[in-house]
Amino acid sequence: MIDTAAVAQYVRARRTDVEAALATLLPLPPDCPAVVADAMRYSVTAPGKRLRPVLCLASAEAVGGTTAAALSAACAIELIHTYSLVHDDLPAMDDDSMRRGRPTLHVVAGEGMAILAGDGLLTEAFHVLSAIDGDPSRVLRAIRLIAAAAGPNGMVGGQAIDLACVTPDPQGRTAPPLDGAGLAAMHARKTGMLIRASAAAGALLGGGTDAHVAAIDAAAAEFGLAFQIVDDILDVEGDPAQLGKSTGKDAAAGKPTYPALYGVDQSRSMADACIARAADTLNAAGMTDTWLLGIGRWIVDRHN
Amino acid sequence: MIDTAAVAQYVRARRTDVEAALATLLPLPPDCPAVVADAMRYSVTAPGKRLRPVLCLASAEAVGGTTAAALSAACAIELIHTYSLVHDDLPAMDDDSMRRGRPTLHVVAGEGMAILAGDGLLTEAFHVLSAIDGDPSRVLRAIRLIAAAAGPNGMVGGQAIDLACVTPDPQGRTAPPLDGAGLAAMHARKTGMLIRASAAAGALLGGGTDAHVAAIDAAAAEFGLAFQIVDDILDVEGDPAQLGKSTGKDAAAGKPTYPALYGVDQSRSMADACIARAADTLNAAGMTDTWLLGIGRWIVDRHN
Repeated sequence: MIDTAAVAQYVRARRTDVEAALATLLPLPPDCPAVVADAMRYSVTAPGKRLRPVLCLASAEAVGGTTAAALSAACAIELIHTYSLVHDDLPAMDDDSMRRGRPTLHVVAGEGMAILAGDGLLTEAFHVLSAIDGDPSRVLRAIRLIAAAAGPNGMVGGQAIDLACVTPDPQGRTAPPLDGAGLAAMHARKTGMLIRASAAAGALLGGGTDAHVAAIDAAAAEFGLAFQIVDDILDVEGDPAQLGKSTGKDAAAGKPTYPALYGVDQSRSMADACIARAADTLNAAGMTDTWLLGIGRWIVDRHN
Repeated sequence: MIDTAAVAQYVRARRTDVEAALATLLPLPPDCPAVVADAMRYSVTAPGKRLRPVLCLASAEAVGGTTAAALSAACAIELIHTYSLVHDDLPAMDDDSMRRGRPTLHVVAGEGMAILAGDGLLTEAFHVLSAIDGDPSRVLRAIRLIAAAAGPNGMVGGQAIDLACVTPDPQGRTAPPLDGAGLAAMHARKTGMLIRASAAAGALLGGGTDAHVAAIDAAAAEFGLAFQIVDDILDVEGDPAQLGKSTGKDAAAGKPTYPALYGVDQSRSMADACIARAADTLNAAGMTDTWLLGIGRWIVDRHN
């Protein structure tokens, strides 16, 4: 039985740790020109769930490590996630004007500066990762899996598939709409791989065995799928004020979504099934006493 | 006395090595969605000078290492350089339609895909770096200096300063024009730091001592300044067909340039002085038998 109040308290505490660390590691003038330092900070400090960094820290703890061992990686992953939001919101991509309850960065700083701030966040993430004080081989493995998850075979590739389906290229061509399998594959890249890498990197830097890292990676894959299903449901049913962004955009853009393909009720059942499978995986690896499953439940029950 | 024919042959041979390695390491379907794999390949395979990777390889050799030890880093740096060109050419930035003799990526693939391909190139660079088979501590140091050079305190910051001077933000504000010192500081970030990191990373991965890495870094700083001065001269005097891009854009945009501030003749003398200082630095560190100085001369004498 999951104590949801205790999970909520755990998540809040870890989020606070991450936000304090983020505030200290973001670049500042005079080393960094103020115009781009301000733009980066604007997006990173907007209130967010901090799901990925919290999952990273909880994974380090799940294998018996400290959160300190994974804190820099957790922050780096949040920088990568934030850059992806900044670029996805650009007029040439999803063209969103609100994010995390604030005007998007390109609205306040201009498109060029938003592109640069995103580039800066992505690059700074690897700068932070390369400075982690730990076993150099494990640090390199963590960098490798985060880069693979965020790159063209992962998040960037998923976003490219998504874009190609809705935005005509200069020759006027659009990719055919995705079916259920294509939708799942697209989301596995676009959101799933970085969520998995967050957990796996935390377990790796926490000193986990290969078996523990693999089990946590598999559980996080289920969390990632559940996250996306719930995201799609919230785009239909959610409250824009609580979400901090507009809703109904996916349907309006003709994007395939889980509720559109399966209906809301079946989509909810699919998300629940993900968490059940994650529980089985963690149990089988002997990791019963962790916050991870509670975080999975929080992903499904969230309202923003 | 520099044998310019031998230098040209050396540069061609190393360029061939780099281009062969780049072709094999770029992501391919089915791991990478074709739409973004094609976009990345389009930009990377366009004919380029490959100055940064050649400098990286020559620096590894200058400290007695092999080019094999630095080849992955050389390729990663060219991926970073290419991403920076793709993003700089976007309509929201420099708005260029020709690059390396081809239509720019956003012209052929659309703005959104060009942003994503740039993001993919940047992320893939760190994926390549993290997989280098070498002393893990040296690999991490190389990643750290490349990330620092490419990030908000370096290349991205330089581009942000440049952008802020010529493109009004959404509130209609433009930064005041740069004076000579501001111009030098902007270019030190925008092009200088990655050129320095190319050389320093090569020396580091080639097994160089800290003293050798420092001397090569200092010499490369001079090369970077010379490179920028000559770039500005070519924008005034160069042949667009040979350059593969339009000329006169900086002057038309009211951007400060070396010829505008100092005249063409004095600018040429300044570039020559850079190479002379680099020679002194390398000589003082006992590195007289290297290709590095020839590469510096090639930077100044080039026509594209």
